[in-house]
Amino acid sequence: MDRAHAEALDADDPLRAFRDLFDLPDGIIYLDGNSLGPIPKATRGRMDDVLAREWGHDLITSWNKAGWIDAPQRVGDKIARLIGAAPGEVAVADSTSVNLFKLAAGALPLRPGRRKIVTEAGNFHTDVYVLEGLAALVGATLEVLPRDQVLGAVDDETALLVLTHVHYATAEAWDMAAVTAAAHARGALVLWDLSHTVGAAGCDLNRADADLAVGCGYKHLNGGPGAPAFLFVAERHQAAIRPPLSGWMGHAAPFAFEPRYRPAPDIRAQLCGTPPILGIAALECGVDIHLRAPAGAVAAKGRSLCELFTRLVEARCGGLGLTLVGPRDMARRGLHVAFAHPDGYALVQALIARGVIGDFRDPDICRFGFTPLFLSHAEVWDAVEILRDVLETRAFERPEFRVRATVT
Amino acid sequence: MDRAHAEALDADDPLRAFRDLFDLPDGIIYLDGNSLGPIPKATRGRMDDVLAREWGHDLITSWNKAGWIDAPQRVGDKIARLIGAAPGEVAVADSTSVNLFKLAAGALPLRPGRRKIVTEAGNFHTDVYVLEGLAALVGATLEVLPRDQVLGAVDDETALLVLTHVHYATAEAWDMAAVTAAAHARGALVLWDLSHTVGAAGCDLNRADADLAVGCGYKHLNGGPGAPAFLFVAERHQAAIRPPLSGWMGHAAPFAFEPRYRPAPDIRAQLCGTPPILGIAALECGVDIHLRAPAGAVAAKGRSLCELFTRLVEARCGGLGLTLVGPRDMARRGLHVAFAHPDGYALVQALIARGVIGDFRDPDICRFGFTPLFLSHAEVWDAVEILRDVLETRAFERPEFRVRATVT
Repeated sequence: MDRAHAEALDADDPLRAFRDLFDLPDGIIYLDGNSLGPIPKATRGRMDDVLAREWGHDLITSWNKAGWIDAPQRVGDKIARLIGAAPGEVAVADSTSVNLFKLAAGALPLRPGRRKIVTEAGNFHTDVYVLEGLAALVGATLEVLPRDQVLGAVDDETALLVLTHVHYATAEAWDMAAVTAAAHARGALVLWDLSHTVGAAGCDLNRADADLAVGCGYKHLNGGPGAPAFLFVAERHQAAIRPPLSGWMGHAAPFAFEPRYRPAPDIRAQLCGTPPILGIAALECGVDIHLRAPAGAVAAKGRSLCELFTRLVEARCGGLGLTLVGPRDMARRGLHVAFAHPDGYALVQALIARGVIGDFRDPDICRFGFTPLFLSHAEVWDAVEILRDVLETRAFERPEFRVRATVT
Repeated sequence: MDRAHAEALDADDPLRAFRDLFDLPDGIIYLDGNSLGPIPKATRGRMDDVLAREWGHDLITSWNKAGWIDAPQRVGDKIARLIGAAPGEVAVADSTSVNLFKLAAGALPLRPGRRKIVTEAGNFHTDVYVLEGLAALVGATLEVLPRDQVLGAVDDETALLVLTHVHYATAEAWDMAAVTAAAHARGALVLWDLSHTVGAAGCDLNRADADLAVGCGYKHLNGGPGAPAFLFVAERHQAAIRPPLSGWMGHAAPFAFEPRYRPAPDIRAQLCGTPPILGIAALECGVDIHLRAPAGAVAAKGRSLCELFTRLVEARCGGLGLTLVGPRDMARRGLHVAFAHPDGYALVQALIARGVIGDFRDPDICRFGFTPLFLSHAEVWDAVEILRDVLETRAFERPEFRVRATVT
């Protein structure tokens, strides 16, 4: 296997024209689109139009004229197409953490008499933290269990199972349909965090009979730093689920100034405050690119990139201290690959100094994201060659690579 | 009184140079800065820098290098100077509605054994709605009472009084220090909504011994449509108040990936998800302009504009169907003026057609905001002349002015 093999894969890549839709700095191989997706070229122009024309010139008339008021549903409907949801089942709102709180709190009364929430130890920590806070607030019980005990803990006391579809560290994916069916068989609902799924390996919520989901806008959707998040409520649950954050944008008639709260009969009930228009506009630019990709092409290319990276590391970095974390089988994972290394933090810094941008996750995980819309197989080859060189020369042992930044 | 009188007031205006810091369309008199503040000229350039350099070029390194991770506190500290708070008492986060939920939910356990929340009927509706949702979620009692009964209802069962400092419709202002003292005397805490206060008439939270506050970024702060909001927790409460939305950004060590939630010991505990960087960057541009204004000048000019408008309407539009809503005394109000009119909706539309942009609030309120940083007394004169003409000619009776838009 050589670079020509990677180049041949690129020659057949149906997504190769998409690279030109993104602005990326010269001289880097960006394997961190799963942390912060790069900026689409269209975003700067679109944002300036929102600022100068919609806000600057048209001012408050843009709530109607530019469709600001419908933006959460409009962009939600677009995201729905990426995750197997129907129109009207997804809205853009708030952050992933806030949305997780909203849907988990809203789910509990749908299962009267049940007060247990189950989640995975090692789930992305904000998910666990938010559930802790909710459980303390409403007097529910939270069980945080190792991955292999999670499903067994879902019993007739359990209202809700909360899982991240693709694990933030290992990239291991749950079988969404099987897990959902197992939870439903015990009378529980399931809330999926799709932060590492959407815009990457994807999923099919309705085929899996999913109940609820949330997800992130700033990773594979290229929505920008701290982009608004999204949430999904299956149509069959929308009439029953009460929003705990009952703000005016979730009211059936937000501008009628009714004295009491009356939830919208649809996904709008999950909105709370005024929609963040600048953030939604940037997010829409990223989502629009994803909608131009042929169905299935993103997931297929992503798996091809991950498979190539894993094979090359195995073949060319053997004995250099790296241990694959997460499943070897590409069908059981999302689009990042994690290797543990005893000097993981310093290794990631040394790679960054050589232009290969990945990230580090405590305690020892080097995480590399393979975003199909802008990465090539040749870049994967080059990244592994640099990784091999950094490991063989032990360049990561230089003291400057051990200095911890605030955000790792 | 004539236009020359207004022009003379403008000649003495210490803020007259500030108009040039905003982009406003030609040919309009914008009396809606209390709904959506206009865009500062600096915002487009700053946003393009955030997009092209911070996001586009520096990517994830900007979390440290560009200070993204500290943006909620950095901009919070700036807003603190506008509302009489100390550094470390204010953070930018989420929406006003979400922040109200967070602080109200966090306040209840600070008053153990008390489960009553009191607020005003006719308070901005999202405030009432959010408190309704919270009360239902945690089993608290919400009393929504007419303005003159609110203080009397605060008793030894009451944990929290929630009021909007400057009323969204009438602009009537509560005496923050007196109300706070009265509530404290009965053992209750007070949560102030400063949405129509900040960047306008202002307030002095610490002089009033305030406990908690929230406020809006897109009105007088010129942060853009749906800008991030802010929250204030008095330093003395920060160690005790537990965030109910316990997301990772509120953790004492967000990047240590600890298995359980451990709140930050300071205002950061009130953060939840990843900060919305694009929205915060735009908000900071608006806040920075306010910090350049001499202390007290904004409030003083605002009262002068409101006084002139009210006097001119009384003098020149008498008998034409307008009724002042809210106090005549400028010391008891914020920086918008409301007149009821039986054909209020159509009247506002007719004024907009003539270039005078105000807004309408059900059932019959025509609301005019007097933003000191970009409005002149001469514009107030001109607006009243147009108002008089529209009323005298009954131009508002034209059928096209009765067509209701989605957002009013």
